[in-house]
Amino acid sequence: MTAELELIELIRSALADRSGGRILRWTGDDAAVVRARAISVTSIDTVVEGVHFSLSTHSPADVGWKALATALSDLAAMGAEAGEAYVSMVLPAGFDGGEELVRGMEEVAEATAATIAGGDVVRGPALAVTVAVVGWAETEAELVGRDGARPGDLVGVTGLLGGSEAGRALLERGERRPVKLVQRHLRPRPRLAEGRALARAGAAAMIDLSDGLATDAGHVARASGAGLAMSMAALPRAPGVDPEQAATGGDDYELLFTIPAEHRMRAEEAAPVTWLGEVVAGAGVVLLDERGQAVKGLIGYEHG
Amino acid sequence: MTAELELIELIRSALADRSGGRILRWTGDDAAVVRARAISVTSIDTVVEGVHFSLSTHSPADVGWKALATALSDLAAMGAEAGEAYVSMVLPAGFDGGEELVRGMEEVAEATAATIAGGDVVRGPALAVTVAVVGWAETEAELVGRDGARPGDLVGVTGLLGGSEAGRALLERGERRPVKLVQRHLRPRPRLAEGRALARAGAAAMIDLSDGLATDAGHVARASGAGLAMSMAALPRAPGVDPEQAATGGDDYELLFTIPAEHRMRAEEAAPVTWLGEVVAGAGVVLLDERGQAVKGLIGYEHG
Repeated sequence: MTAELELIELIRSALADRSGGRILRWTGDDAAVVRARAISVTSIDTVVEGVHFSLSTHSPADVGWKALATALSDLAAMGAEAGEAYVSMVLPAGFDGGEELVRGMEEVAEATAATIAGGDVVRGPALAVTVAVVGWAETEAELVGRDGARPGDLVGVTGLLGGSEAGRALLERGERRPVKLVQRHLRPRPRLAEGRALARAGAAAMIDLSDGLATDAGHVARASGAGLAMSMAALPRAPGVDPEQAATGGDDYELLFTIPAEHRMRAEEAAPVTWLGEVVAGAGVVLLDERGQAVKGLIGYEHG
Repeated sequence: MTAELELIELIRSALADRSGGRILRWTGDDAAVVRARAISVTSIDTVVEGVHFSLSTHSPADVGWKALATALSDLAAMGAEAGEAYVSMVLPAGFDGGEELVRGMEEVAEATAATIAGGDVVRGPALAVTVAVVGWAETEAELVGRDGARPGDLVGVTGLLGGSEAGRALLERGERRPVKLVQRHLRPRPRLAEGRALARAGAAAMIDLSDGLATDAGHVARASGAGLAMSMAALPRAPGVDPEQAATGGDDYELLFTIPAEHRMRAEEAAPVTWLGEVVAGAGVVLLDERGQAVKGLIGYEHG
């Protein structure tokens, strides 16, 4: 039996089926067979050693956690319910963390009621993990895209910003404290419950913050054909985070959303949200200082 | 705009939606949204430069073809209908074949009525392409796993064997002829129509031949708890292929199946098949010579 097959056996034994009987066939056949719900929601993401993480700062379990958590974050941003994950790992010669990596992934799966239902293990020059995630919804109307922002909508965000970037900077300097910031970077949490609740509350557009608030707000603005005007002072910052980290730091995996103003209360009941500003006519993203002037140099997507 | 985003734009413009309106959202949002059919069938596969192909013998279009074709082959082996593909590419610095790679993939998608519905492009040290494919069926009973082989079933295979391995050997020696063998290696064809037709004809177990007949037959034997006895002389060989290449050469992506003997005619009407032998009690795979003696040294999965 090859090392890949041995690892696949180990992986199988580490996985739990949380589908409630919807998974009819899974690991061990040519493909997984799942009883579908009405609408499937699918995304694929890859993390690569030296690009998205470093084994000098991330344990194999951290890598597995990150790979699955960031993929699931895309489902959160749609307001979908997590379903199955399919995992392909490229393992370099001499890397013996495959089993630990899968255990880190299984921790996220357990926390989000997802099931790792299939995968592939191959050799290659550097550690890379690709995760395709499938979420489900009963109707298309339950889901939220990037393109629904309309002038007058409020712009809100879940959680605190900049913590992952601050944690990354700490790790780069060889520091592991404050633990909260470092964990923000190593163990991001996909906001699945918040995403579904905000979708039910009437969110019009939603995106997860992977590239940083300024850049990701630009994606919403572009897809919606509208502008997003937000206040720098309003950005909810994790302790120890400066305003620029909050505005541009990546990998927070909080949800940025817009919602018609009449649903403000419903959004506040749905999730811990901070209001950042509003959707305006025009295009692009503008961050405003206390005097209502545009802050220069922090805009991820071109204004105008 | 980053090079990755530019490439993603190019990719989007190269893709066609063949879903007949089932794809509600695709590239450009956090996840693709698809109107599901009753049963989803999902597989994920990765090909890596230097392991599964070499850019010295494969053009970027060949790489794209191979990545999608081999993933779809897993759906063929289940008897599923091809649906959507989700593609993640790791591109090394200096590689400028991303667009051509996607065009090669789109050629396969067109030939199989599949739709490339989403993807990810990241940087990394070596070219790697991961494809998650989703196929569909109306009922679980339409599908065929590896575990259904029963003593007395006939064992059959589609197409000709060993051509890909012979083509690979030619390419390794710097030869590009005979073109047919080289193309067998560079441009494998997923047997989707054959897989569905054989499933409808009553196939009891099925697998696609990626690791070679002997090894893949072993997977069926193990999953089914039965033995597969096949005649070396019966193996359908591509011209220029020796018996050992036919028995052990990988990457043919033909379908090996078992079927109750009463469905023999139905299988022959469903696809061009060659009968190799039968399912027997016991475990493992045995290849028999003309005198009915086991051929030694060609058995991919342990007999006994």
